[in-house]
Amino acid sequence: MADGPEDIEALIELMAKLPGLGPRSARRAVLHLVKKRSLLLLPLSDAMQSVAATARECLNCGNISTSEICDICRSESRATGEICVVEDVADLWAMERSAVFKGRYHVLGGTLSALDAVGPDNLRIPQLLRRVREEGVREVILALNATVDGQTTAHYIADQLGPEIEVTSLAQGVPIGGELDYLDDGTISAAMRARKAF
Amino acid sequence: MADGPEDIEALIELMAKLPGLGPRSARRAVLHLVKKRSLLLLPLSDAMQSVAATARECLNCGNISTSEICDICRSESRATGEICVVEDVADLWAMERSAVFKGRYHVLGGTLSALDAVGPDNLRIPQLLRRVREEGVREVILALNATVDGQTTAHYIADQLGPEIEVTSLAQGVPIGGELDYLDDGTISAAMRARKAF
Repeated sequence: MADGPEDIEALIELMAKLPGLGPRSARRAVLHLVKKRSLLLLPLSDAMQSVAATARECLNCGNISTSEICDICRSESRATGEICVVEDVADLWAMERSAVFKGRYHVLGGTLSALDAVGPDNLRIPQLLRRVREEGVREVILALNATVDGQTTAHYIADQLGPEIEVTSLAQGVPIGGELDYLDDGTISAAMRARKAF
Repeated sequence: MADGPEDIEALIELMAKLPGLGPRSARRAVLHLVKKRSLLLLPLSDAMQSVAATARECLNCGNISTSEICDICRSESRATGEICVVEDVADLWAMERSAVFKGRYHVLGGTLSALDAVGPDNLRIPQLLRRVREEGVREVILALNATVDGQTTAHYIADQLGPEIEVTSLAQGVPIGGELDYLDDGTISAAMRARKAF
């Protein structure tokens, strides 16, 4: 016998497909939902319906939005001369939480990957090059993950942009609050190479 | 600025209330859902609606069911003389997966807890005592968690059942595949006290 009535099993199976949830935590989550039917189960289902109905990709930058052009791209208070290139919407959100960047974004939707057969045209790279030309961009900040694929993608984009555009990337080094003892060798050597006058 | 359009934020907030998901993993899950709108987001919302509409507690044992009396309580192939008492539906499911017990269940819905002011009448204990009288139960198996509250509850139920009913509990000892080095002292001493001829 399986875990319970068919409806519940179907829900558990779907929940287990979410990143971060396995079969066991999906079961726990579903039991919790059944117990909190009016407080959580129904509101969650409604919220999903409304996101499914309204959420879409910004045509300009790839951010998640409820309109054709997202709030950040439409905002007049954001600098137009700088584009911060990120892999994913989650990275855009992380940048926004730090509230340090006041320009606009471009979400690639992944990284180049020979293994997964992801080429420039599978990402939003052509759109980035067009935006750089059309929006009079002076600086492109490559905020890609410090992985092999992330850095390959960064080099490719820098090549395509050519020497007229200033291309920068996030500094690498010891994270704030980081303890040397717990850092990997790569981070320590990157921080050492990029050391600054104290 | 927050994480995105209001609908998305509302969904993230609700998802973060699920056990096992924090704000960060809720954000990841929601981004995944938005990307898989027709494959995951809409089916998940529908599955939640259908569970909300059909799932209910079995009036007899407290299991989750789509009818007034659950499949296990209605099944004629399950022994009627034995009731396995569990804290939660998740524990019932775990027992069913092991497929070792062929009797019926009784879900308490928690444990006695002085700190949280949970008394016998907040649990399904009166119903258990009535079932034991009415269903001609010979053996009550207490499959409660090996926590202080779980064991307090087990002792209370055993007291209430009185000496006419055989009351048993799950054996304690070294889990299958368990390595002594990684076990806590309590488990080792319980296994030592309950040692058997080899």
